[in-house]
Amino acid sequence: MGPRGKGKGSEAKALADRSHVRDSLTASNSLIQLDSHGLLSGCSVLLGAETEQTDFLNRACFGRPIITTEKDKQWFQLGMEEAFYLFYSLKCLKIIGEDQCTKNNEELWSYMKSKEDTFPEYLKAYSRLRNKNWVVRSGSQNGVDFVAYRHHPALVHSEYAVLVLSGDGDANDRLKVWSDFQCTLRLCGSVAKTLLVLNIFRNNTGAVSPSCL
Amino acid sequence: MGPRGKGKGSEAKALADRSHVRDSLTASNSLIQLDSHGLLSGCSVLLGAETEQTDFLNRACFGRPIITTEKDKQWFQLGMEEAFYLFYSLKCLKIIGEDQCTKNNEELWSYMKSKEDTFPEYLKAYSRLRNKNWVVRSGSQNGVDFVAYRHHPALVHSEYAVLVLSGDGDANDRLKVWSDFQCTLRLCGSVAKTLLVLNIFRNNTGAVSPSCL
Repeated sequence: MGPRGKGKGSEAKALADRSHVRDSLTASNSLIQLDSHGLLSGCSVLLGAETEQTDFLNRACFGRPIITTEKDKQWFQLGMEEAFYLFYSLKCLKIIGEDQCTKNNEELWSYMKSKEDTFPEYLKAYSRLRNKNWVVRSGSQNGVDFVAYRHHPALVHSEYAVLVLSGDGDANDRLKVWSDFQCTLRLCGSVAKTLLVLNIFRNNTGAVSPSCL
Repeated sequence: MGPRGKGKGSEAKALADRSHVRDSLTASNSLIQLDSHGLLSGCSVLLGAETEQTDFLNRACFGRPIITTEKDKQWFQLGMEEAFYLFYSLKCLKIIGEDQCTKNNEELWSYMKSKEDTFPEYLKAYSRLRNKNWVVRSGSQNGVDFVAYRHHPALVHSEYAVLVLSGDGDANDRLKVWSDFQCTLRLCGSVAKTLLVLNIFRNNTGAVSPSCL
């Protein structure tokens, strides 16, 4: 089953434009060239983008634009998984901590892990889908962890509602009770998405560094 | 906010008929007089009802009628909480095990607890709502544990979607993740029910007998 388009002709447009996600990932070079720096702020990363970067972020659907009074800069708010993916997997973003120092892999990893214990699992799920050219956005509106779009969200509705379960049973009891499972399924049905459950298993080292990805 | 009626005039009818739930509970005498016996079968109890009992079960909304070829008897399938409530709290039902012996309180309790570890919490929630004259039915259609009706389900829609959480944190991680909470809330909104979360705490003895209720 293909994706449901938004409005007349958008499905055909999306199909014709299939390569835009990959293109825009290649365009991450622009972030590198402009030496982009994100600012760590609680559970998100703020990025002040020039026109070229704004174009990249919008086309590849990273971050959420924030309205400010600054005219020459468009600020974006990146979630932890998005920011780490741009930083670690695409290597097109540097991240500055609240102490004004540039973070290295391990520092950023342990910071984000301290903010959210399940960060490694969410990041793994996010990276996996992104690497397969899905556009991944927060699923909070639909009561799941992520939603996945086959094309740009402006053109199509998301196809998958994604739940991320950590493999070891003690830490995660989600979907263990029948009524919870029915709740998720019924909701997915009502918003016309397919439920995708990703079970992520930690290796024995306990995900102490990003190399565990 | 009052309950939403089903069809024209049903709300007024339900209000006028407010006492029918209590009436029918008093009518449990008919079950006692007829010396009703339920047959334990897996996770449910089967009850072959005469006309008078059928009337009671239908008016008080216990059990689910089963279609059989028997003409003089209407069979009902009772859930574990329903059966135990009729057996222990209303004392209007005897229950026969698969070994053809009548079960006493402790035997039935440990049987049902062995079938479902959270049985004591579900039963406590069920009994509590029933004792407050709510009609309680399975919530599986709505992805919750129970739904609660202010009047007879034939007249009104259920008002509450009930989730039963066991108090101790380790055993029950439901609603701990934001997206699960959002999922439940969004679903409750879409079916026009209010979410009612019941936290049930076990006492120190660990619910070894029905006296812990």
